[in-house]
Amino acid sequence: MSNRGMPEPLSVDVPLRWSDMDAYGHVNNVQFLRLLEDARVVALGAWFDGQELLHRGVIVSRHEIEYLAPLVFRPAPVRITLWPSAVSTAGFDVGYEIADPPAVGSRVYARAETGLVAYDLGQARPRRLDPGETQRLTELLGAPVSFRWRRR
Amino acid sequence: MSNRGMPEPLSVDVPLRWSDMDAYGHVNNVQFLRLLEDARVVALGAWFDGQELLHRGVIVSRHEIEYLAPLVFRPAPVRITLWPSAVSTAGFDVGYEIADPPAVGSRVYARAETGLVAYDLGQARPRRLDPGETQRLTELLGAPVSFRWRRR
Amino acid sequence: MSNRGMPEPLSVDVPLRWSDMDAYGHVNNVQFLRLLEDARVVALGAWFDGQELLHRGVIVSRHEIEYLAPLVFRPAPVRITLWPSAVSTAGFDVGYEIADPPAVGSRVYARAETGLVAYDLGQARPRRLDPGETQRLTELLGAPVSFRWRRR
Amino acid sequence: MSNRGMPEPLSVDVPLRWSDMDAYGHVNNVQFLRLLEDARVVALGAWFDGQELLHRGVIVSRHEIEYLAPLVFRPAPVRITLWPSAVSTAGFDVGYEIADPPAVGSRVYARAETGLVAYDLGQARPRRLDPGETQRLTELLGAPVSFRWRRR
Repeated sequence: MSNRGMPEPLSVDVPLRWSDMDAYGHVNNVQFLRLLEDARVVALGAWFDGQELLHRGVIVSRHEIEYLAPLVFRPAPVRITLWPSAVSTAGFDVGYEIADPPAVGSRVYARAETGLVAYDLGQARPRRLDPGETQRLTELLGAPVSFRWRRR
Repeated sequence: MSNRGMPEPLSVDVPLRWSDMDAYGHVNNVQFLRLLEDARVVALGAWFDGQELLHRGVIVSRHEIEYLAPLVFRPAPVRITLWPSAVSTAGFDVGYEIADPPAVGSRVYARAETGLVAYDLGQARPRRLDPGETQRLTELLGAPVSFRWRRR
Repeated sequence: MSNRGMPEPLSVDVPLRWSDMDAYGHVNNVQFLRLLEDARVVALGAWFDGQELLHRGVIVSRHEIEYLAPLVFRPAPVRITLWPSAVSTAGFDVGYEIADPPAVGSRVYARAETGLVAYDLGQARPRRLDPGETQRLTELLGAPVSFRWRRR
Repeated sequence: MSNRGMPEPLSVDVPLRWSDMDAYGHVNNVQFLRLLEDARVVALGAWFDGQELLHRGVIVSRHEIEYLAPLVFRPAPVRITLWPSAVSTAGFDVGYEIADPPAVGSRVYARAETGLVAYDLGQARPRRLDPGETQRLTELLGAPVSFRWRRR
């Protein structure tokens, strides 16, 4: 991943579970999104102190994920690097890379992007990002995810 | 969904589980991909008699999903309509729409697309689709998925 | 299962998901409890019209499950037969048998029992079963689950 | 937990996932068994160097679990303490306690026991524990699990 001249993205080590594997003996493709969910919970807490944004409400509007290498359960976690990859008035995107932690190797297993929409939990409807949220996200803004398949 | 002049896509009713809901009381966004997995298993069996393609091998290379409405657990299944939406020498895409079955309503909850790559399980490497597979998929070929977010 | 002279237990067909299988290619032992959960949601709705009991609140205090035969994913559901197997002032037990539906075969895959405690969701504390609940459960009361291992 | 005069049981910290919570906002009762599975994978590796026993084969024949306190997702893991609680010629039991790690608190969330049967994966049938396995398990043998409900 190269985010030259951009803010350092966050890295979160997410442990695998034996049950993440499916009948093919690989971490199931759907479980990759489960791993992203946990990294995102950590990241939203880190980016917006104390998960305030999560409490005000944010919902997933879109996922895109590309698988690059098969992953088998092992005691070592995967390292998920993630960053805001786009910001708009209504929400923002999060880009991710799922790879080995440096101590284990350098294989990249998947790249992904999630669209998040700011949400008013009390009123149960979309809301606009407030100025503080927009500013924080803009400070953290990194490169768009470079998916392979879009190059086709 | 309009696939005018194209082959009729397949519809598979997939039951929800109470546990598909997350702490927000909605079917979790990741579980939508779990529902798609089950519809795909049925469809690959129906499109290629007796899951032959599945036995020869096919792996997921990509997912894209867009959420349109929140879904809450209920006894009624969701109706997943799915069709091959692109074919190449190396694999094919499957397009999906997750909606209410007609008896329940007409709400569309999500649209999605999965990239599948033909795989040689014995040799553990990608393979080309064989002529019979390509012909069958071409007969079934429907429209690309019309994601909202791409129109931005 | 023999419940001679007792009320007919309820049978609920619960579909399997491909993802219920683990890396050994069998429906994972933990997923059996997931299947029981769905049968229980249906049963509590059927036993207490419109899931009233569920809305008033009931929580799981205990599970016991014994596995009798391996189960592999197939399109056919499993038939879960279930019945109240004990009633007290504080809650009740549900007994289960997971087997093939008659059209598929007669194999029994597991027997299980769940302890449920009546709960006051508003006050967030255990409550007593009310007389109506107790009467209804007593009408439905079946035999205790005959676990093999207890006979040791 | 008191295992006075017995070998020290193993403690494994198992991280929670946000998705372990269900629509009630608590870690779902079935997910507790998922947490036990991961602790067991670690323990079998530790007790029998390099997961040899797992490779030779061992299958779950029974689970029993008793819930003592509700658990809500938090970044801190749960500490699962586990030990062989019975040994026979055909297999062994594992006892567990799920609690807070000392740095977080001292609440006990659940106690459980799993029956494991030695299995010959090649021949697909139960086998006897070999003398080395039996000796190792006997060295590690701890107290039976003291379930509350059995005292009734």
